[in-house]
Amino acid sequence: MQIDLNCDMGESYGNYVSGQDEFIMPYISSCNIACGFHSGDPVTITKTIELALRNDVAVGAHPSYPDLQGFGRRVMNLTEEEIESCVLYQVSALKGMTESLGGKLHHVKPHGALYNQASTDESTANAIVEAILKVDLNLILYAPDKSTLAVIARKKGLKVRGEVFADRCYEDDLCLRSRTLDGAVLHKRDEVLAQLDLMIRKGAVKTFGGKEISITVQTICLHSDTSGSAELAKEIHDFLISQNVEITSD
Amino acid sequence: MQIDLNCDMGESYGNYVSGQDEFIMPYISSCNIACGFHSGDPVTITKTIELALRNDVAVGAHPSYPDLQGFGRRVMNLTEEEIESCVLYQVSALKGMTESLGGKLHHVKPHGALYNQASTDESTANAIVEAILKVDLNLILYAPDKSTLAVIARKKGLKVRGEVFADRCYEDDLCLRSRTLDGAVLHKRDEVLAQLDLMIRKGAVKTFGGKEISITVQTICLHSDTSGSAELAKEIHDFLISQNVEITSD
Amino acid sequence: MQIDLNCDMGESYGNYVSGQDEFIMPYISSCNIACGFHSGDPVTITKTIELALRNDVAVGAHPSYPDLQGFGRRVMNLTEEEIESCVLYQVSALKGMTESLGGKLHHVKPHGALYNQASTDESTANAIVEAILKVDLNLILYAPDKSTLAVIARKKGLKVRGEVFADRCYEDDLCLRSRTLDGAVLHKRDEVLAQLDLMIRKGAVKTFGGKEISITVQTICLHSDTSGSAELAKEIHDFLISQNVEITSD
Amino acid sequence: MQIDLNCDMGESYGNYVSGQDEFIMPYISSCNIACGFHSGDPVTITKTIELALRNDVAVGAHPSYPDLQGFGRRVMNLTEEEIESCVLYQVSALKGMTESLGGKLHHVKPHGALYNQASTDESTANAIVEAILKVDLNLILYAPDKSTLAVIARKKGLKVRGEVFADRCYEDDLCLRSRTLDGAVLHKRDEVLAQLDLMIRKGAVKTFGGKEISITVQTICLHSDTSGSAELAKEIHDFLISQNVEITSD
Repeated sequence: MQIDLNCDMGESYGNYVSGQDEFIMPYISSCNIACGFHSGDPVTITKTIELALRNDVAVGAHPSYPDLQGFGRRVMNLTEEEIESCVLYQVSALKGMTESLGGKLHHVKPHGALYNQASTDESTANAIVEAILKVDLNLILYAPDKSTLAVIARKKGLKVRGEVFADRCYEDDLCLRSRTLDGAVLHKRDEVLAQLDLMIRKGAVKTFGGKEISITVQTICLHSDTSGSAELAKEIHDFLISQNVEITSD
Repeated sequence: MQIDLNCDMGESYGNYVSGQDEFIMPYISSCNIACGFHSGDPVTITKTIELALRNDVAVGAHPSYPDLQGFGRRVMNLTEEEIESCVLYQVSALKGMTESLGGKLHHVKPHGALYNQASTDESTANAIVEAILKVDLNLILYAPDKSTLAVIARKKGLKVRGEVFADRCYEDDLCLRSRTLDGAVLHKRDEVLAQLDLMIRKGAVKTFGGKEISITVQTICLHSDTSGSAELAKEIHDFLISQNVEITSD
Repeated sequence: MQIDLNCDMGESYGNYVSGQDEFIMPYISSCNIACGFHSGDPVTITKTIELALRNDVAVGAHPSYPDLQGFGRRVMNLTEEEIESCVLYQVSALKGMTESLGGKLHHVKPHGALYNQASTDESTANAIVEAILKVDLNLILYAPDKSTLAVIARKKGLKVRGEVFADRCYEDDLCLRSRTLDGAVLHKRDEVLAQLDLMIRKGAVKTFGGKEISITVQTICLHSDTSGSAELAKEIHDFLISQNVEITSD
Repeated sequence: MQIDLNCDMGESYGNYVSGQDEFIMPYISSCNIACGFHSGDPVTITKTIELALRNDVAVGAHPSYPDLQGFGRRVMNLTEEEIESCVLYQVSALKGMTESLGGKLHHVKPHGALYNQASTDESTANAIVEAILKVDLNLILYAPDKSTLAVIARKKGLKVRGEVFADRCYEDDLCLRSRTLDGAVLHKRDEVLAQLDLMIRKGAVKTFGGKEISITVQTICLHSDTSGSAELAKEIHDFLISQNVEITSD
């Protein structure tokens, strides 16, 4: 059995450091690198691509709304044309930089509010898909499996990888439980490993409501900016290896 | 005889319009498109690339210091690593966007204070050249012919095109006369055409001091943001055609 | 009879010029100066305050969402705390600068998407009002008369001036006709003067649907960035004078 | 004996946290709050002012070049008019916000590259002093005692407080030893307390070259963003108290 472990990376900015990139990189198979709109200055992007290539981790672009002050976590009412151009710009920058440094861009995963908005909003999803198709038909889109974004992308011929979260709790409709509610994040190591186990063995999650529901698991997202995230990444990695699961971006 | 006519383009930003891009594009052979650091939001960049491709004008990247408030006209004391990454990011964005829209990136011309600083400062010049070499060995660098930037670029194997300005006055050392002094800009149509005539016929300029000095003329820069720039572009174009000069980016 | 004529001012940014501030300033009684979040760099703000003071025009702050790329015209999903702090910051900057230059801050008028959002959204309105109350209880809020923003402001003890637009068409519910529809803007001089005449004589507007509906007219907004705006400002000014209307911010 | 202990505060930005503000605030008498140009979004500024007021710490403005990406640590070639307006804007914002929250602005201390540049460059120093004088004649400027900035400020009638650094090594000319050289920062608790002891007992420092040289000590700067800075702040505080030194911003 194979699984892709992905993680958001390169979310530092100038003097500000976020995440534990170099400690987590050895344990994952693909990473989503911030492109400068919610975080990620040019030096940070360069170093993060180099770090990924050294660790043989597949490089993805992690485009966002243009909102550094809000870390891309606030929905902005952009036109479809504006979203498409913003994604085109960011993915192009990451693609060119990755190739310049000896690699190849592997995938795209929208960030924060853009990811959430595209999961349900058709116009946003359309804009993102159109931008990616223009850049490279072979790029893979990471998105929640049955989301509007995934559905539109597949319809237009883009490869999609269904993404689940190792440490986030799901509702019965397979939406992530809102961070404003308790129980949204799994803080305990054992809870995370149990959720992971269910995901890889049965392709299912136990929801906040207690139901076991099927879910497509093609890539699993770890977080890099929570306390203990580096240790957790190692434990998840080791657990998967112990279960004879190959961690790979292929 | 052949000559390349280039012009800075895409220097609008969001609601702000700068330049007369669509009126000038038909008369030039190559353009330098702002990459978002001194001007140029993603929608503007997209539209400007499309405009250039429709007019069969070669697309270049016009990278800058990160200074939107100062339009890239203020020297910033960046490290060599910071400059290299900033240029790598901007040129990569333009390259990917141009290819996404069906074209091919042709050249790079640094903007404003970065262009001036690189003309004499070795570290700045080095950083720019290294970035371009990483992106694509076949990109052409537009730079003042005997500048530090041009010398370093040629030494490292980058193609360089010696740039002159149609409407700027030169000093005896072939530096541009400072804009803080009178006589820095040629405002009259006849002065501009006379300077142009000397450039293409004899490869020379008449300096502010009155001397006629040889200068390498491989590409001629027009301005798009001065009053009457569109009319002047047409007149320059027509004058060159009347002299049997082919206007081409080849 | 008296009326206040206001106009958005200081919406240039660095190298980008917007509006015809110096030509319009002589004809108005109060101005709303951009605070740096949608436009207005520090030099522009300084010069615009000085220009207002020289013309004896009352100075107001024109705060916005933090969105330079979108000119503050895109709704952003900020928290109430974020909006309050953003307004507090911008109004404080304008107040301090106006006092430093020998004047006194007179009013606050939210800009663009923030103005529209606050007209109907309680949380946004609350945040704006709380911020203004913290800065100075004597500041006047310019807002559409029966909007959520005006209602909440009056309830909390803030002075409100009901604002109408000279050149915008109204719907039957007294909302402005959307700019995405035809007929949203009155382009002809005679239409504008007719609307103005009805506003000051009868306190009413003729809506797009053809009805004449009462509206509170305490300040009239002109635009500075449309073609012919300076000439129109003069005509409106002269028309009001000819009708024995005093133009004053008192 | 009395001394003022100051510390840079409020240098977080949106999602990015910098410094240990709440742990250090109890041990200092004045703080310099970032104004949004090198760090400090409106929410952070608001919370930092509130924190200072709760701890009875004098609030100062900490204006910078407009360079978020470089954290204000890169010299930018601004005109004197640009610097004056930038400082005017930032100090005005902090003054208004502090007063809105029930306090009073006490002082101004330029940040990073602006501080260093003003220490030796007359034009930069002039611009800063002019801006502060416009805002409030009673504001105190924190600056290196014999610097160009301090000299010009005193000449123009501004109160100046001579600033020294507890954990930075001095050269024989009383310049700070460059951070690019070893020995620039005192990392050991005992070294810092020894330097402090010499500063308050004898008004002197022992330089990198080993000389003991007189220096004016009116305010001592601590750092908030180095590892162990909170513990060090407490130790410095306790040490001064044990020496019967009153820590006060008066």
